[in-house]
Amino acid sequence: MDSLSMTGAAGTTRIEGVMAAISERIATRSLVPGARLPSVRSFSKTMRVSVSTVVEAYERLAAEGVIRSRPGSGFYVCGPLPPLSLSETGEKSGRNVDPLWISRQSLEVGDDAMKPGCGWLPPSWLPQAALRKAMRTLARGDIGVLANYGTPLGLPPLRQLLARRLGEHGINVPPDQIMLTESGTQAIDLLCRFLLEPGDTVVVDDPCYFNFHALLRAHRAKVVSVPFTPMGPDVELFGQVLERHKPRLYITNSAIHNPTGAALSPVTAHRLLKLADASGLIIIEDDIFADFEQVPAPRLAAYDGLDRVIHIGSFSKTLSASIRCGFIAAKPEWIDDLVDLKVASSFSCGQVSAELIYLALKDGSYRKHVEALRVRLAKAMDEVAARLEAIGITPWLKPHAGMFLWCRLPEGLDAADLARACLAEGVILAPGNVFSLSETAGRFMRFNVAQSADPRIFDVLKASMRKLRAIHKDAAASGITAA
Amino acid sequence: MDSLSMTGAAGTTRIEGVMAAISERIATRSLVPGARLPSVRSFSKTMRVSVSTVVEAYERLAAEGVIRSRPGSGFYVCGPLPPLSLSETGEKSGRNVDPLWISRQSLEVGDDAMKPGCGWLPPSWLPQAALRKAMRTLARGDIGVLANYGTPLGLPPLRQLLARRLGEHGINVPPDQIMLTESGTQAIDLLCRFLLEPGDTVVVDDPCYFNFHALLRAHRAKVVSVPFTPMGPDVELFGQVLERHKPRLYITNSAIHNPTGAALSPVTAHRLLKLADASGLIIIEDDIFADFEQVPAPRLAAYDGLDRVIHIGSFSKTLSASIRCGFIAAKPEWIDDLVDLKVASSFSCGQVSAELIYLALKDGSYRKHVEALRVRLAKAMDEVAARLEAIGITPWLKPHAGMFLWCRLPEGLDAADLARACLAEGVILAPGNVFSLSETAGRFMRFNVAQSADPRIFDVLKASMRKLRAIHKDAAASGITAA
Repeated sequence: MDSLSMTGAAGTTRIEGVMAAISERIATRSLVPGARLPSVRSFSKTMRVSVSTVVEAYERLAAEGVIRSRPGSGFYVCGPLPPLSLSETGEKSGRNVDPLWISRQSLEVGDDAMKPGCGWLPPSWLPQAALRKAMRTLARGDIGVLANYGTPLGLPPLRQLLARRLGEHGINVPPDQIMLTESGTQAIDLLCRFLLEPGDTVVVDDPCYFNFHALLRAHRAKVVSVPFTPMGPDVELFGQVLERHKPRLYITNSAIHNPTGAALSPVTAHRLLKLADASGLIIIEDDIFADFEQVPAPRLAAYDGLDRVIHIGSFSKTLSASIRCGFIAAKPEWIDDLVDLKVASSFSCGQVSAELIYLALKDGSYRKHVEALRVRLAKAMDEVAARLEAIGITPWLKPHAGMFLWCRLPEGLDAADLARACLAEGVILAPGNVFSLSETAGRFMRFNVAQSADPRIFDVLKASMRKLRAIHKDAAASGITAA
Repeated sequence: MDSLSMTGAAGTTRIEGVMAAISERIATRSLVPGARLPSVRSFSKTMRVSVSTVVEAYERLAAEGVIRSRPGSGFYVCGPLPPLSLSETGEKSGRNVDPLWISRQSLEVGDDAMKPGCGWLPPSWLPQAALRKAMRTLARGDIGVLANYGTPLGLPPLRQLLARRLGEHGINVPPDQIMLTESGTQAIDLLCRFLLEPGDTVVVDDPCYFNFHALLRAHRAKVVSVPFTPMGPDVELFGQVLERHKPRLYITNSAIHNPTGAALSPVTAHRLLKLADASGLIIIEDDIFADFEQVPAPRLAAYDGLDRVIHIGSFSKTLSASIRCGFIAAKPEWIDDLVDLKVASSFSCGQVSAELIYLALKDGSYRKHVEALRVRLAKAMDEVAARLEAIGITPWLKPHAGMFLWCRLPEGLDAADLARACLAEGVILAPGNVFSLSETAGRFMRFNVAQSADPRIFDVLKASMRKLRAIHKDAAASGITAA
């Protein structure tokens, strides 16, 4: 009888009445998240409806996600929204093209693991003696530096030194327009918080540094991408994206692009800035690979005079990733608000880190270290490129400097499959699609030439590629289409 | 003629027509932010209306904030929303009760300034020898530590040491549920980002650490406050706030409350957690003053078993504020997502900092340092309390430990006025209302007893109080009501 009336208008109204009664109790918090709902039998008495009407009402509320059933125990009010999760699936086991996957893999394994996919130099390539000397100097230094908070903008002599260095790249900025941060990543994070409202659109290069994707997701930004060419972003498409999506912000690497190793050409830089001017776009130029350059490429900040371009950098690639320190150079109107934001979100950046970086940078040996590093990287670049080409993996371009080789795999091979296969053999790779918002880099792989000295890496690559090809061949032979 | 027709229906329609034409050009980006509008004369021809109609339309658009006039140069399209600014007024000169005011004042002045308003110990109170020794040890240590990124959770031996220390406070947590952060502030910032959606409501104590206000504003949270009693928050009112505002989160200090120096009583802790359970509230317990305690006060995390309480801390108060390192202890389901968020927003926390903190903490001298510190603070507390009482400034309670004295000023004196007057004499104070969301602490002032050794502080206070009273008396005599 009841099951019949449930489909009728009167039944529907009764079910909705029960649903409304429960919803109201949840809204007024007489039923709080986690609380058990009245039993079906007792609530049917309260509401003067049949048991099956209550069952149906509870089922519908469960389908809506308002309550959930625990078998054998009844129905419970669901909790508030779960906390923010950056992993796309919520499942960590299968996170293969997750932008955070490589970061965590590379950070978790030890120094002696084979990780051509990671984004930094081996510690032995960094200026050991200068770092130890800086440490000893500080150990004897002023206790205030060892114990106290730093000033809001950050260590004055380091900001002076940075102003000089930026001047060498044509970026004229006084030290009080430079704010130190905990790292390059924190610099971008602060700027996103400063510039973006949730839902704002941001343009990135495709491919680009994968952590930009994760960071922008944390800011709840909409992300659109523009294909990257050997000269910089495709300006034609960039203009179309500006028109269609009216983005607030563009985040890019200047000088040496991650992952491609390409550099912005002067004409691309000029056209980009014209487009940005016309549409009110703000640009964050992440220049953390600056010191690897042999011949300086154009800087957007130099062309633009820090009007709509914000320039950031750090020392994690050429000095130390363990001593956290980065910086932001921006126009004066913005620096003061950025300082407020830094004080609110991290109170002060570490004086010890800033002092160590300063001591190491001003040490006479730093320039020699960097020069030797460039030569060593260029040599490794040639060697690794030759080794990769020997097994059919071809660089997309020959970068003028830096540590990255962006390579195309042989036809029919998927980079994520290859990364998975090599991971099983202890080699951590960086498959192309983690860098690509459009996921059009499934046949690309980024290699860090400084982390590719071990010949076993190429043996593992070769063997894994052979294995994957065999699987594909088998699948084809048995009539199943290979993905 | 035109000025007459403007008030008529036809004139209004014409004005609106011009406004609509401009708005459409802005919407379709044929006029972009910063672009100059057509001159009044030329646009009157385009639209076939009178000059004064265009003038009126432009004026109205300017009043709406869509365009702005530059005298002598015409009208321009306004830019997008200005970037986030945390200062309440946008004017920095008058920021007297701005929560960021004290932070920046205290951080900007040198170590030898008189700053009884600041929130940390003088460097000479910190364990100089242990810090220098840690530095020297690290200078000789593994190059990987000096140069490489740390692991995602952070230095394992430091997390083990923290797990043991937390165990001593009844918080049983394995090392893999502890994540290191760049600082205590960054720990709270990460958690806010993890737990809050813009517009979510957060409860704080009134008064509370002023940076909570600034931080929550950066997260675009709604903030409500509950009066703090010598036993903890007023539980009755806390319950009412939960019912009325359904907050997502409560941020508080356990052990030693900032600014009052009060400690949570066991019964308050228990009742708070019952209320939190019933309403699904999450609690961040900021325990950065833990090491100052003589007798341990209850920890919410210990009662709750890290179910809905997240416990954070740092070493900036007893070891070094210059070596940035903090931590989060939370339930396992949350730690993994928090690591993702940390990698996205700061990539890695500094291994050098974590290693220095670890070396200093495990040094046999640390426990002795902390014991001596407690005795020294207790002595300073008595002395400063006596000096303040001698000039009519009365502690709200006698804290059982820590460095803060929360004091009431004599009748008729305003703490912000007094802070302003003393700042002119080179003494930085912390006026009550920067700690108070409801701005009901206008007669209170927080004193840091460790920063109040200089007798000139009390001379300046006394003289400034006398001066302010004289001004009030004059104002009263001349018939003007004193504010």
